Amino acid sequence: MQHYFLNEPLTSGQEIRLPKSISRHLSRVLRAKPGDRFQAVSSSQQVYLAQIKAVDDRQVTAVLQRPLDIDVELPVKVTIVSGLSKQNKPELIVQKATELGVDQVIFLPMARSIVKWDQKSVKKISRLNEVALSAAEQSHRNRVPNVQYMNRLSELTKQSFDVKLVAYEESAKEGEATELVKSLAKLTTGESIVAVFGPEGGISPEEIAMLTTQDYLPVGLGPRILRTETAPMYFLTAVSVMTELFKG
Amino acid sequence: MQHYFLNEPLTSGQEIRLPKSISRHLSRVLRAKPGDRFQAVSSSQQVYLAQIKAVDDRQVTAVLQRPLDIDVELPVKVTIVSGLSKQNKPELIVQKATELGVDQVIFLPMARSIVKWDQKSVKKISRLNEVALSAAEQSHRNRVPNVQYMNRLSELTKQSFDVKLVAYEESAKEGEATELVKSLAKLTTGESIVAVFGPEGGISPEEIAMLTTQDYLPVGLGPRILRTETAPMYFLTAVSVMTELFKG
Repeated sequence: MQHYFLNEPLTSGQEIRLPKSISRHLSRVLRAKPGDRFQAVSSSQQVYLAQIKAVDDRQVTAVLQRPLDIDVELPVKVTIVSGLSKQNKPELIVQKATELGVDQVIFLPMARSIVKWDQKSVKKISRLNEVALSAAEQSHRNRVPNVQYMNRLSELTKQSFDVKLVAYEESAKEGEATELVKSLAKLTTGESIVAVFGPEGGISPEEIAMLTTQDYLPVGLGPRILRTETAPMYFLTAVSVMTELFKG
Repeated sequence: MQHYFLNEPLTSGQEIRLPKSISRHLSRVLRAKPGDRFQAVSSSQQVYLAQIKAVDDRQVTAVLQRPLDIDVELPVKVTIVSGLSKQNKPELIVQKATELGVDQVIFLPMARSIVKWDQKSVKKISRLNEVALSAAEQSHRNRVPNVQYMNRLSELTKQSFDVKLVAYEESAKEGEATELVKSLAKLTTGESIVAVFGPEGGISPEEIAMLTTQDYLPVGLGPRILRTETAPMYFLTAVSVMTELFKG
């Protein structure tokens, strides 16, 4: 069933005129007809079962039948911070992180980033927020993750999080294999966690030093070398395993 | 450091003439010179530190200096079985599964597969084995996973595995959230585990029925709907978390 985010308060029985982009998708792409149903998500993350009432002149109207008991959000708020990486890697990071339940993705230039976004960052971030919306619809999320650009790593320290981690290959080599699960096991519902990931060339020792003085704990992600786009997927899955499957 | 698979027995002190493809990569792509070092993996999965002795006429010779204490393989042998999927999804599955430690990937047509490989399967599988080799070099694996094509799901039951799972969305809905971690927690070093994943349209009830009669246990992968290429990544990460990080 289709799943759309409406960004407004909703109530059962309400009749809604769907925004242009959703009307167009339902009428032109899916050739929806009166009587067809879909899921509509309110600004307060409540999912409703909706039924199409009329499709005319590219404007679809629908009636909200009833609230659905659907909550697929991770029990903790996860922020992924990623150094700028090449090609379509940022898109892949945002798409997969959204499927895996991320709350916020921050891209920023790091010491070993080969690419620079500078003037392009507004356009890139706009595109990445579209990727997040599309992936959130596909994976039937209750909310759309937010994607942002940050000018430098030091700005990150202005945001507060309950648990702060940085993925560091050297940590895995030093046998700190259990640090990640120990940190995740401590999390309780509603808490926030941030994890920083370097670009292709890895995170620099200076960046690690700066983060550790801000109480970021270096953690390994298993013994294999993961590509820059795979590491956040590994991390988010570990959060899901530890907070959803164990306590499920 | 570069990491190459030599597919032959190796011993310390030995001088080796590198195969054409590796010689070409070292000499032309990396412009390697005598004295440069790389990692060479023997057919018995032992990694050696190697030093280039001569680069002439596209033939690189090297000396194996000493064995390295590197073992990044998962403690259990994981087979991923995937229904045929569209576009570049099989490549992405093989690349990411290799990074995450898979032992074997099997592609096969399933009831809801939209694509068919038939005559193209030999070429496709050959290409996917190249993807596995490249990803195994990048992630510094001790072995290159094997990628195979299978004509039908029923042939799978001829292979024996210690633990047999099938990813099933309905299992997550039925609240069997803990089945996956329970199954993984039972694994001991050296055991084999297989997990079956449907194509884009999902696995059919008939396929689930056939697999469960063969003692395949349906398991959920958390509450969110994962794309066909994301589900194996989630599963392999869960195996790593349970067998490497907890027991690390």
